[in-house]
Amino acid sequence: MSLPEAAAAGLPEEPAGAQLLAEIREQPQALRALLEHEAEYARAAAAARKHGTTTVRMVGHGSSDNAASYGVYAFGLLPRWTALRDSITLTVYYASKLDMSRSTVIGLSQSGQTPDVLAYVQRARSGGALTIALTNDPASELAEIADLVLPLAAGPERSVAATKTYLNQLAALALLAAHVSGDGRRLAEDIRVVSDQLAELIPTLEEQIPAVANPFAFIGRMFVIGRGAEFATAREIALKILETCRVAADALTSTDLAHGPVAALDSLFPVWTIASHDDALPAALEAAARVHAAGATLVASGTAAEQVADADYVLPVPEPPSPLLAPLLSVVPGQLFSWAVARAKGLDPDRPAGLTKVTLAR
Amino acid sequence: MSLPEAAAAGLPEEPAGAQLLAEIREQPQALRALLEHEAEYARAAAAARKHGTTTVRMVGHGSSDNAASYGVYAFGLLPRWTALRDSITLTVYYASKLDMSRSTVIGLSQSGQTPDVLAYVQRARSGGALTIALTNDPASELAEIADLVLPLAAGPERSVAATKTYLNQLAALALLAAHVSGDGRRLAEDIRVVSDQLAELIPTLEEQIPAVANPFAFIGRMFVIGRGAEFATAREIALKILETCRVAADALTSTDLAHGPVAALDSLFPVWTIASHDDALPAALEAAARVHAAGATLVASGTAAEQVADADYVLPVPEPPSPLLAPLLSVVPGQLFSWAVARAKGLDPDRPAGLTKVTLAR
Repeated sequence: MSLPEAAAAGLPEEPAGAQLLAEIREQPQALRALLEHEAEYARAAAAARKHGTTTVRMVGHGSSDNAASYGVYAFGLLPRWTALRDSITLTVYYASKLDMSRSTVIGLSQSGQTPDVLAYVQRARSGGALTIALTNDPASELAEIADLVLPLAAGPERSVAATKTYLNQLAALALLAAHVSGDGRRLAEDIRVVSDQLAELIPTLEEQIPAVANPFAFIGRMFVIGRGAEFATAREIALKILETCRVAADALTSTDLAHGPVAALDSLFPVWTIASHDDALPAALEAAARVHAAGATLVASGTAAEQVADADYVLPVPEPPSPLLAPLLSVVPGQLFSWAVARAKGLDPDRPAGLTKVTLAR
Repeated sequence: MSLPEAAAAGLPEEPAGAQLLAEIREQPQALRALLEHEAEYARAAAAARKHGTTTVRMVGHGSSDNAASYGVYAFGLLPRWTALRDSITLTVYYASKLDMSRSTVIGLSQSGQTPDVLAYVQRARSGGALTIALTNDPASELAEIADLVLPLAAGPERSVAATKTYLNQLAALALLAAHVSGDGRRLAEDIRVVSDQLAELIPTLEEQIPAVANPFAFIGRMFVIGRGAEFATAREIALKILETCRVAADALTSTDLAHGPVAALDSLFPVWTIASHDDALPAALEAAARVHAAGATLVASGTAAEQVADADYVLPVPEPPSPLLAPLLSVVPGQLFSWAVARAKGLDPDRPAGLTKVTLAR
């Protein structure tokens, strides 16, 4: 029901951003719902091994593509498979026939309706790939055309800006990768712990966020930097800020920042940095120092946020039992920040201009 | 010699952007210089075939990483190999040992000194990959540690913002891919034709550019969109604008624009679109229409720029003999635009704040 329809029906109007906030809060239970499907993930992992997989090809747009950035690390660290965000254009528009006989393809689409993801999965399957649909709608067309379906099980997502489906996509990719490498049981338990950590973290962040977000109400541009598994977090936070707050937010790896973009920084061009405890942390801290030297305001989140010297705002998250799961926690401050900045700007984050929940764009 | 040193030595000061403009103009001859090394490219292609290559892993930062985006299509379309911009972090920081026995690795670095590209190439080589250094300095450390060296042959690049080395990287990747697929001779001749086309195009664009660039002097943010092989062009133009003009310019595929970022557009948030004649053109035109509907100013370049309905500024480039070579032409309007906007803003594009020619950042 649209807002005017709700008003006409005499229903109370929802406050701006109510859907987005509700779905951010639902994330702990969405993760637990995913874990109920663990057996399906274990079976898909066995099928991928049996297929002789050496390469995992992930395709999706928007948040789904950001989740695929995380998948590169989940598969690269656990079964040590080559995983990539594959070019859809090469297969769908240019019709180049790559050898996909030893590939597992994962089509990521919340709705299961994204047109060129469907076209890609169809062609990859006829080219010999094992195809998996990772979708919130196991009755969708994507689910129908793939060899296997893995349910995201996030429950209905009404907000245009994805939150709980993104978190469940990360968990799903990690769970599948862990089952391939024989470590799925342990990882499932670790995801359960993260779900508990999130249930504690979210109310705390909700209290902290307004003081951080309000000073950003007049900002027009931002960088979000991260490296390794947290590059996915940087991409996802940048996209949330872009679509809900109408800020030109761009994600960069901490190293790419130094290769050009740092030249654009000044006191009106703030930078959000994700710093988590892993072997890429020194590179992230070095990049944050470069941002501070350029005179830009610095926000730090992640499990190692407190180690970022000279950060103006610090939003730490707890350490998960497995470092690979840190991005499930690190992204949440960015979700709430987007929600709060949009409201501070008088925008309704539930209704970004020109967007609909299911994107059928080519 | 720095500017103050030049002044102290009694030399005339160069006007702002003189180096960048000189190197943009040198691009036709830089391409011809590359072609003198064709035999080395043919030998490297034979070595990659002999290695049993199925996967090409490219690593680089900044413009070199943008060129790698192009390489995905050069290798995907010609020998139909899986080509990816590999994660440096996975191998260098996380020390995950992927099976690289059937991989050819291409390390892209103008200077041949980028620290984590060196570290990646070293580890990939000991992991069984065939490693190729693609560098402007065949005496660099990168050249020393790789199995094979392919010279970029662009001549000394003094400007911080890469132009001729980027164009030569594209040509080098196309030439290598074409020699793998047995079509190297013909592609070399096509690159020679493009060099002639550029020699005619550049003076024409120099006349057109000020009228396009000057209205953008007060812009703070921009998107650059492209798809397929032209996504590399979108990334490279965005980086040029970002580092020389201090504009928050972000590259997006035309489809990703619709998955969120379109919500941020308005009349002060212009979009540059690359439209070239290939099978992804309908998707590019559809995205341009979406930009126009959002009320944003629209700049169109590429071989099919004139087909972009409602574009406010049109900068067409000629059709190359092989469609794969269009990105060598489409990027040039963006190089000159960056040069001109920087000057209109009173910035010196030869000396972006906080950047040095050789970036040793982690």
